[in-house]
Amino acid sequence: MDQNATPLPRGFRVAGVHCGIKQRSDALDLSLVLAEREVVAAGVYTQNRVVAAPVAWDRDITPSDRVRAVLINSGNANACTGERGATDTAAMAAETARAIGASAEQVLILSTGIIGEYLPMEAIRAGIPMAVAEAASDEPSLLQAARAIMTTDRVPKVSHRSFPVGDRSVQLTGIAKGAGMIGPRMATMLAVIMTDAALTPQAAQRFLCSAVERSFNCISVEGHTSTNDTVLLLASGEIPLDSGAQARFADELEELAIDLAKRIPADGEGATHLITIQVQGAPDERAARQVARTIADSPLVKTAITGGDPNWGRIVSAAGYAGVPFPPDRLRLSVNGVALFAKGVPLEFDAAALSQSMRRAFDVRIELELGMGEASCTFWTSDLTHEYITINAEYHT
Amino acid sequence: MDQNATPLPRGFRVAGVHCGIKQRSDALDLSLVLAEREVVAAGVYTQNRVVAAPVAWDRDITPSDRVRAVLINSGNANACTGERGATDTAAMAAETARAIGASAEQVLILSTGIIGEYLPMEAIRAGIPMAVAEAASDEPSLLQAARAIMTTDRVPKVSHRSFPVGDRSVQLTGIAKGAGMIGPRMATMLAVIMTDAALTPQAAQRFLCSAVERSFNCISVEGHTSTNDTVLLLASGEIPLDSGAQARFADELEELAIDLAKRIPADGEGATHLITIQVQGAPDERAARQVARTIADSPLVKTAITGGDPNWGRIVSAAGYAGVPFPPDRLRLSVNGVALFAKGVPLEFDAAALSQSMRRAFDVRIELELGMGEASCTFWTSDLTHEYITINAEYHT
Repeated sequence: MDQNATPLPRGFRVAGVHCGIKQRSDALDLSLVLAEREVVAAGVYTQNRVVAAPVAWDRDITPSDRVRAVLINSGNANACTGERGATDTAAMAAETARAIGASAEQVLILSTGIIGEYLPMEAIRAGIPMAVAEAASDEPSLLQAARAIMTTDRVPKVSHRSFPVGDRSVQLTGIAKGAGMIGPRMATMLAVIMTDAALTPQAAQRFLCSAVERSFNCISVEGHTSTNDTVLLLASGEIPLDSGAQARFADELEELAIDLAKRIPADGEGATHLITIQVQGAPDERAARQVARTIADSPLVKTAITGGDPNWGRIVSAAGYAGVPFPPDRLRLSVNGVALFAKGVPLEFDAAALSQSMRRAFDVRIELELGMGEASCTFWTSDLTHEYITINAEYHT
Repeated sequence: MDQNATPLPRGFRVAGVHCGIKQRSDALDLSLVLAEREVVAAGVYTQNRVVAAPVAWDRDITPSDRVRAVLINSGNANACTGERGATDTAAMAAETARAIGASAEQVLILSTGIIGEYLPMEAIRAGIPMAVAEAASDEPSLLQAARAIMTTDRVPKVSHRSFPVGDRSVQLTGIAKGAGMIGPRMATMLAVIMTDAALTPQAAQRFLCSAVERSFNCISVEGHTSTNDTVLLLASGEIPLDSGAQARFADELEELAIDLAKRIPADGEGATHLITIQVQGAPDERAARQVARTIADSPLVKTAITGGDPNWGRIVSAAGYAGVPFPPDRLRLSVNGVALFAKGVPLEFDAAALSQSMRRAFDVRIELELGMGEASCTFWTSDLTHEYITINAEYHT
């Protein structure tokens, strides 16, 4: 789909502007999601002990049925900024509320960027009325909003789904950002998902938590959990759902969340491969995810994929230190569909052909059977390249 | 100390030879530690669920008071090799035992190198008598033995300590290897520590476990726990220890283990910095280590050090996802002695001067106070560089 033509659910308007947090004058750095009336909002947040000021603000508000706007800045995380950080977040909410005729507690705030610096509040104060004006205009600006939340992302991340309810169509539209400092014990980086379905705050929270478990909690880039990770679900309530439609909504929300989440490691800093890790035969989903995450976060596994090297011992040994007890002689491992290890012994395979298939495609698939139960997990990560080192060691803060 | 002149404890001989596991004809690949009489042996092994055949063999034997030799090959880990791997390990022990007039159960086996390939047993069978002959010669060969266990190591790792007991001197001499696949939930890569002190098997095991906790369990390179990690302590029993001398022995053993362990991240694949992470004010040592390890294994922290970038938000946020509950407003962080963050807010500092101090020296010191208790941990890791990527993505198996 042409991302510029992605439809917004009824009841929402969006904008993305440059206010001056980022230095380049063409760099968008302030996004606004505006609800025409009060909407339901649910949130899932980072599990880091050190949380940014906006996360603390939003956690106090959600779930809610009175939210009017989400203001998002990039270029500065407003994390590790103490009392002044909290005051700045409250001021962002108050200014936005004043511009749209709401109260501060109806405005959610998201920030992403450098940790440990104070926000340039003058720039943000100037940007808020610009964003409100743009949201009121008739220009389609979803892609602008998605761009204005980017940091080291190379591409904006937008996803859309819809399904019929009676003679109407429920829309789900989401935007996300994230490329580095992506670790899995958390919600995600930033994502905002809008829908015109009618949900209670409790139902919205429940659907969101469930969708996040199998999407944003199943991705990593380098495994470093951020202080600012947030996923929001906003529901404008235009279309009532019966229980069948609610179940369909939950499925569609999970699909949309997975689609958005996968785009983060696919755009991982320096990534040359998107690695899909499917762990099966686990005693429970948590164990499956723990094994998948440990494989995903091993720099030795990542660099083997980078180099197109079918060095499967790195994968098996990573599974072995995941903290999940399993009988090693029941493991079965394949990469890109080629069986490499089973029943405790190496299998014969065409290493040159497998290496070529790993090098040729952006997608690499690792499948590991634990031989213990019925639970499974699909996890997505990026490989580790020279470009990752360049981005994180050579570009200075 | 001239490593070639490092003394061996009484009762031990060592050798390092080339038998042909590694292809280059000058690459040493087989080490032998020979005890002149039966000695006490204790071992600490990897916690990986997938363990190599030699680890399974040694675990069955130690602690023991009847060990006669340790045979170590590099270039092949003999891991994920099933029944045939176990048979090969038993054959290595039997051949060595035959050459020295002992039984197979008196020979410990260590292997390190590629996972998932069968050992070239013909080469090893030819190498064993060569190693036995060299150990019997009068040439000092500790450095040869340390070289013959190297894989991607750039330097051999030898450490020695001694202390007086009456009019005699207790010697402790250790060798170690390791540069990659170094993760902290384990014993280490390979290390063998010899002493001429008299210890029971139980005391040797207790002293070794305790020393490993603060040395080999406090290092990482990329956090990937190997299938083969092993630390052995061999005691030839020449010098009896009273309880005061036993306490001194435990201290000296810990110091020696720390010295050997630090050499592993200092020689970490591609490392340009040795990073020492001191976590203080923790409720217990385990929590302190968990925070230190999480900081150590963050690719974002590592690359910041690589680039000489005092981007302290990466350190604080890594502490935050370590899984240890702490009050963020009591954190105090310094790097190379410069205070950066305290009481929840950023401190003013001279970023250019700190960056220069980080770039200039091989050693970088991170100190983090948690403000909760009295426990602490010192942890050592390497930085993450282009050279690490080159070693692990571009050199193929």
